[in-house]
Amino acid sequence: MHKLLVLNPNTTATMTAAIAATAREAAAPGTEIVARNPATGAASIEGPYDHALCTLPLLAEIERGERDGCAATIIACFDDPGVAAARCIAAGPVIGIAEAAFRAAAIISTRLAIVTTVEQAVPIIEDLVVRYGTARSCVAVRAAGVPVLALGNGGAAVYRRIRDGAEQAIAADRADAIILGCAGMSALRARLACDLGVPVVDGIGAAVKLAESLVALELRTSKRGGYASPNAARPTQDLLRRAPRRDGQKPSRTK
Amino acid sequence: MHKLLVLNPNTTATMTAAIAATAREAAAPGTEIVARNPATGAASIEGPYDHALCTLPLLAEIERGERDGCAATIIACFDDPGVAAARCIAAGPVIGIAEAAFRAAAIISTRLAIVTTVEQAVPIIEDLVVRYGTARSCVAVRAAGVPVLALGNGGAAVYRRIRDGAEQAIAADRADAIILGCAGMSALRARLACDLGVPVVDGIGAAVKLAESLVALELRTSKRGGYASPNAARPTQDLLRRAPRRDGQKPSRTK
Amino acid sequence: MHKLLVLNPNTTATMTAAIAATAREAAAPGTEIVARNPATGAASIEGPYDHALCTLPLLAEIERGERDGCAATIIACFDDPGVAAARCIAAGPVIGIAEAAFRAAAIISTRLAIVTTVEQAVPIIEDLVVRYGTARSCVAVRAAGVPVLALGNGGAAVYRRIRDGAEQAIAADRADAIILGCAGMSALRARLACDLGVPVVDGIGAAVKLAESLVALELRTSKRGGYASPNAARPTQDLLRRAPRRDGQKPSRTK
Amino acid sequence: MHKLLVLNPNTTATMTAAIAATAREAAAPGTEIVARNPATGAASIEGPYDHALCTLPLLAEIERGERDGCAATIIACFDDPGVAAARCIAAGPVIGIAEAAFRAAAIISTRLAIVTTVEQAVPIIEDLVVRYGTARSCVAVRAAGVPVLALGNGGAAVYRRIRDGAEQAIAADRADAIILGCAGMSALRARLACDLGVPVVDGIGAAVKLAESLVALELRTSKRGGYASPNAARPTQDLLRRAPRRDGQKPSRTK
Amino acid sequence: MHKLLVLNPNTTATMTAAIAATAREAAAPGTEIVARNPATGAASIEGPYDHALCTLPLLAEIERGERDGCAATIIACFDDPGVAAARCIAAGPVIGIAEAAFRAAAIISTRLAIVTTVEQAVPIIEDLVVRYGTARSCVAVRAAGVPVLALGNGGAAVYRRIRDGAEQAIAADRADAIILGCAGMSALRARLACDLGVPVVDGIGAAVKLAESLVALELRTSKRGGYASPNAARPTQDLLRRAPRRDGQKPSRTK
Amino acid sequence: MHKLLVLNPNTTATMTAAIAATAREAAAPGTEIVARNPATGAASIEGPYDHALCTLPLLAEIERGERDGCAATIIACFDDPGVAAARCIAAGPVIGIAEAAFRAAAIISTRLAIVTTVEQAVPIIEDLVVRYGTARSCVAVRAAGVPVLALGNGGAAVYRRIRDGAEQAIAADRADAIILGCAGMSALRARLACDLGVPVVDGIGAAVKLAESLVALELRTSKRGGYASPNAARPTQDLLRRAPRRDGQKPSRTK
Repeated sequence: MHKLLVLNPNTTATMTAAIAATAREAAAPGTEIVARNPATGAASIEGPYDHALCTLPLLAEIERGERDGCAATIIACFDDPGVAAARCIAAGPVIGIAEAAFRAAAIISTRLAIVTTVEQAVPIIEDLVVRYGTARSCVAVRAAGVPVLALGNGGAAVYRRIRDGAEQAIAADRADAIILGCAGMSALRARLACDLGVPVVDGIGAAVKLAESLVALELRTSKRGGYASPNAARPTQDLLRRAPRRDGQKPSRTK
Repeated sequence: MHKLLVLNPNTTATMTAAIAATAREAAAPGTEIVARNPATGAASIEGPYDHALCTLPLLAEIERGERDGCAATIIACFDDPGVAAARCIAAGPVIGIAEAAFRAAAIISTRLAIVTTVEQAVPIIEDLVVRYGTARSCVAVRAAGVPVLALGNGGAAVYRRIRDGAEQAIAADRADAIILGCAGMSALRARLACDLGVPVVDGIGAAVKLAESLVALELRTSKRGGYASPNAARPTQDLLRRAPRRDGQKPSRTK
Repeated sequence: MHKLLVLNPNTTATMTAAIAATAREAAAPGTEIVARNPATGAASIEGPYDHALCTLPLLAEIERGERDGCAATIIACFDDPGVAAARCIAAGPVIGIAEAAFRAAAIISTRLAIVTTVEQAVPIIEDLVVRYGTARSCVAVRAAGVPVLALGNGGAAVYRRIRDGAEQAIAADRADAIILGCAGMSALRARLACDLGVPVVDGIGAAVKLAESLVALELRTSKRGGYASPNAARPTQDLLRRAPRRDGQKPSRTK
Repeated sequence: MHKLLVLNPNTTATMTAAIAATAREAAAPGTEIVARNPATGAASIEGPYDHALCTLPLLAEIERGERDGCAATIIACFDDPGVAAARCIAAGPVIGIAEAAFRAAAIISTRLAIVTTVEQAVPIIEDLVVRYGTARSCVAVRAAGVPVLALGNGGAAVYRRIRDGAEQAIAADRADAIILGCAGMSALRARLACDLGVPVVDGIGAAVKLAESLVALELRTSKRGGYASPNAARPTQDLLRRAPRRDGQKPSRTK
Repeated sequence: MHKLLVLNPNTTATMTAAIAATAREAAAPGTEIVARNPATGAASIEGPYDHALCTLPLLAEIERGERDGCAATIIACFDDPGVAAARCIAAGPVIGIAEAAFRAAAIISTRLAIVTTVEQAVPIIEDLVVRYGTARSCVAVRAAGVPVLALGNGGAAVYRRIRDGAEQAIAADRADAIILGCAGMSALRARLACDLGVPVVDGIGAAVKLAESLVALELRTSKRGGYASPNAARPTQDLLRRAPRRDGQKPSRTK
Repeated sequence: MHKLLVLNPNTTATMTAAIAATAREAAAPGTEIVARNPATGAASIEGPYDHALCTLPLLAEIERGERDGCAATIIACFDDPGVAAARCIAAGPVIGIAEAAFRAAAIISTRLAIVTTVEQAVPIIEDLVVRYGTARSCVAVRAAGVPVLALGNGGAAVYRRIRDGAEQAIAADRADAIILGCAGMSALRARLACDLGVPVVDGIGAAVKLAESLVALELRTSKRGGYASPNAARPTQDLLRRAPRRDGQKPSRTK
């Protein structure tokens, strides 16, 4: 019996609820899903600035989640924001849904395509494709032209745009599998897989299974390399916990 | 309740038994492990010629395993022999233990090292490191100087050589996690992890969890890209089916 | 006076005869071409499963060829199946026609394109392009939409499709040279070169000259690295030797 | 007459003063250096967690700096923390000192080595080396074994360790130029260059000149690609400004 | 007060004059621009043969320029011809305008496109993109269909072709910044930047600022690696010095 | 019956004679070797400046060689100087000995090492290793500490240094084949191969066979891509033709 912390890095609670539902569907009988989102930050995560906004609140949630007994953390945004920082402070493994989706898809596909929300999301995902060593098998990152927050109540028009993006990837880029490039698309997975006739990979489900796997294998983040723990004696440990209170202070400066 | 087929590609039945034990330890309660090895081929897999020898018998075992209801296949040799061919004919997903180990280790480490058996195994593993997109985070592939078939009854001397190889990787190459580069090393994992103080990843356990994950997520190999099914009308289908009978020998197995 | 073994890995004897004719045209006066195909396996080689099928019979043919005095071996299929395994057991050098074509074309071109048979062949060739270090200069791998076995009696329609694929590569991908991506296309080389106005490289001819070159330079496969000889004491040596006799069939050959 | 904002991302004011001195030395007559550090965060920046800590305060300082009329921003830490986020919100160009050092060194060297503080800093710098396309010419990243905060008052022992690290890079890695891998090493540049006999590049000076150059060329960050401005309508704009006040709020969650 | 040598490697004096004007616009108050071109060689530089033709005369001009007190050299052709050889003999730093443009653009863009003159120029620029480590962020190299020597007196038609090429790069390749891929396009920079709405980078201006920066930072080419000085005793030193006199022609120059 | 032009790019006639001898040994009965060196340039080729010096004289020699009926050109210096320019003007194929050696060695080896003359030659060869796509299989470029011009009369001491370098590459870098990284080492090939027990590849022999092969296959440099012919109307054509006459010197040659 394990608890998994599933963090939606944006502040949109309806999206957190949808993510929780997908995670619970994927979870094994013995797994409890603890789904949360920070109270502050961006309503949707779109670009490096939003990553900066959401990271500190995410780290605070991870500390709280581990105090509550969570054995692993999933960051449920396809940009994988804050994953490296989180690995430095978390006791359990930390998994971004993009990385989880890429690692699962690599087993079943030779020509991956990612269908995401809007053009602006493409360069960040292209960076992840390279960082995770998937550049050779990824044939396309396509934007469906649907903003993140429009996914929730999307209905037929949203479904059609995403399916069209996937069909173009299959036809024009000869993709043989589709990765859903946003946490908000998970609910469409089964229907898309049926309509498209190729495997469709959702990062939330993939991350839940990967988290369960690492917990079962007793594998935790190595603290010997790039994910070393921050110096325990630093005042910054306190700082993170107090962060919201720091406002009355003035930055020192030399000028 | 799922059956997983765990294939040892060499003909050494004692090794198959050891692999089966590791796989069963990693398996979830609802998973049944079917561990087999071909009756013909090489006593140990060392190099491209042995890959050629073991592949056809492996394919025949996969066909048999799927007739017996196995939902996924694990090829339990760190060279990942025959994986691409197997993905073309198997209905369920096919997982090599090297790929499984790399994908799990990527989540918890920034500087991987692989400790394998003998120097001759190194170039093949280096090729896999590149093929699986792990080149940037893999800092070393080291041979412990222990032949595959010496692993089984190795005792203290074998353990010491493997531990020494891992310690050198940590000290000289600044590795922050160790991957065991041979299916025959699995039994040493827990003790090594304890002695080394860094995560130690074994491909058999990682592959069992990955197979369970893909089955749960209902992800199967795409047949639209590089793993397309062979033409059903070919006379070679018959050939493959008859291949195991050609010597009058029966494959040994542990189940 | 040297003998070169030219192996067609599929079982289609008419294709072997065509390959032999091309090889003899390219051969120097002192070179004798021994062209053969295995008696069992696939009628055409299309994908990793077919590679697995053809490799053991190819290895047996190489052993036989070397007993017959052949100084080098050419594997005449653009997927270069079995080349690594063959290099482990052959006394003389072993050359795949894809590698031979890439190495020759690299000298005379900055923007290569490969025109092959069907879409399914593309991912395997793309893998070879990377493996052989040709990724930077290869601008396209295009399928002409002609199945391998339709090449033989193709006539005008087949020629037109292949020429169209090459013309698109020159116009759209700005290719400055064309590589024929299937052993069955060799006979069209001269006519294509004339029609297209750019160099057209055929792997069979390139491989024959490369084999003659390596023999003249007395260069043989190194057995110190990844092509080390398999352990001589293995029972599998017997197995391989008996393999061709297992069906009572005789391999057809053109010589 | 331009103002450049030079931000030390850590909270150590003596280091900010030293950075300011180096920047002023490099600045052209018409350039005014505004050197600041955030009031909160880490006393030294060592790893991804510290990047997360310092980024939001850095962004607030950039907004303040631009309100004060600064034409460009320099982030004076060799990890280049927060650069991508900063480019999304800044009106002027944003320059990390690692990137500035790499770009200057590329013009004058074929075999770069970076000498940094401690082993833990190495993997982050290795990542930057790849991200900035310097992998081919960078022959080593070496740690001198001097913690960041020990640099300031280092004296002879600190100098000797850094010089030793550089000398090893020149002798063992055949480096032909040295990049100082920490903002706190700038003051040693001239003496090192003299002792070592190869060019020694300091990122602060390089960044000041690059900032002046981009301002003179009227080049600003493109907002069409990966550095697009965050959505103007987002409540998060307010949030950043109010961030210190957010503490009385509770995160919403689904569980 | 510094002199910068700006060399146009072709023999077209009107182009040298235009380059000089752009360089002077970019230069700081204390910088004197010495703009010259060789008397012999090609009227425009288009391909490797022209590089060979222009290199020796360029080297002679650099020797002369340094005798005249120039502190750094700019080679004002987007092919960066002769840069490596020049770095071996020059006392001051040597900068190619392509490299300067790439290094400046890297700071402000995530998706670069280069618009150059004719198709034949594309492969050389693609090679530079890789050599300078810009492959990941460069999304296109497009030819505008305007020969180098047609740029000078181009008028509206030339401007339109170049603007169209840039607009296609922005629309079809999603470029977020444009680099002008020929020294002869500099005069169009400001108007293009205005019309296109994305940053437009000109290599001449970028190179002038980079030269000023390196001179201010006292960074000179390292002679320990690949740019080592040629052996002083060689008779070829004389040869080079006499080379410009061999035709009785005097180099035209604008200064 | 074909003539091959073998050009030694340096002016040392004894080296040209030695190169000619090696080339003639490798040549087929019907091949005539025309070995020449330019009358002017560097006595040995060591670095980019020397490449610049030798290229124009090489181009003139190629024009002369083709007027004399040579069907292909070999540039017999392991830096492959001037190859791209030569391919633009030559009617027949042009082959550098480094590229020829790499292409031959790729067929017979998985772990190449290059043993060259002095440290200064290493960065240029490392660049070629990348340019020719050999980076993955090249495990080391080692300098033997023997200057080019000391090779000729080297005797036992020179032989020992080169053999030591090769033995270190085999032991420490686990090389399985050695490439001789200088045209002046050819005469040692057979003895080294015997002493080392691994294949030893000499670029001159490899280039002669490759030239014969391309001539037999009727493959010539494509003029559609990066090797397009220079504009015929240029006055520089005259210049090149007159270049050899400029010093009143006659090129020495061995034929």
